[in-house]
Amino acid sequence: MIMVVTGNGKGKTTSSIGQIVRALGHGQKVCLVQLFKGEDFYGEQKVLSKFEDLDFFSFAKKHPFCFKEVTKEQVIKECEQAIEKLKEIAINNKYNLIVLEEFNIAIRDGYIEEDSLIDIVKELNKKANVMITGRGASQKLIEQADLVSEVKEIKHPYNKGIPAQEGIEF
Amino acid sequence: MIMVVTGNGKGKTTSSIGQIVRALGHGQKVCLVQLFKGEDFYGEQKVLSKFEDLDFFSFAKKHPFCFKEVTKEQVIKECEQAIEKLKEIAINNKYNLIVLEEFNIAIRDGYIEEDSLIDIVKELNKKANVMITGRGASQKLIEQADLVSEVKEIKHPYNKGIPAQEGIEF
Repeated sequence: MIMVVTGNGKGKTTSSIGQIVRALGHGQKVCLVQLFKGEDFYGEQKVLSKFEDLDFFSFAKKHPFCFKEVTKEQVIKECEQAIEKLKEIAINNKYNLIVLEEFNIAIRDGYIEEDSLIDIVKELNKKANVMITGRGASQKLIEQADLVSEVKEIKHPYNKGIPAQEGIEF
Repeated sequence: MIMVVTGNGKGKTTSSIGQIVRALGHGQKVCLVQLFKGEDFYGEQKVLSKFEDLDFFSFAKKHPFCFKEVTKEQVIKECEQAIEKLKEIAINNKYNLIVLEEFNIAIRDGYIEEDSLIDIVKELNKKANVMITGRGASQKLIEQADLVSEVKEIKHPYNKGIPAQEGIEF
């Protein structure tokens, strides 16, 4: 199954983390590939790194929107490395679930080509369920997916000027 | 902060599980109170039960919609026990995060009174972040919340007749 979690609301990453925990609970093998997330910052990274049945890879840890010193060229290069890793995984795919965190953003912002992601997702999906998260999912990816959820922001404390809180937003 | 995760799409429970894992990763203490979920069925229950910093309570394990032998009276009684447990927790609240799984459903279906849930949520929120999940969140609860996400179903394999899959839906 190909699953897409998109939308502008809070709950996409936590939803993928919950999906990973659910799969691990059934003894499944899981691979998480994250983009645009610094390590040792998000609470879930500390917990997930302890599971033997989870392999965890991280690329393009800094998004230029937040880190002005990072160039588009650097991000494109690191996203290419992420795609290479996925191709490597596809050759000898031992996973039940593969989660591609924030890959929608990478397509939206032009760091990964839509078609090259869709090709590798289809390849991975031959043996594993694949979940792709991030706001702004492309229409073509949505068409390929079996399950699509949109997390809509109805209310968010950011809009009242309340800063991100440990244990909630990270 | 009071958070509500509602909507008809897949990702509400997984989102709350991810939120719990995130909080645990920061060394926070978490309480999960579930309604309408049988034990030893969902993969996440097997994983979460191992965390020392998580207390896990389950009430009204069977919803009459799925289990015809369960009466409305039984469910109301068990939901009352859940509310009593929450009142007990509020007295000496040691948690950073309290998750009330499927409590929106309990209000929607008339098993818990809207005002009694809102009262106890406000009380719990004096010391902890509180997250309430389930489709059909009441307007009054949404008004009380600081953060509300609606998970909308865009596509779901159920609609193609594909049954629920281990590691995905449970």
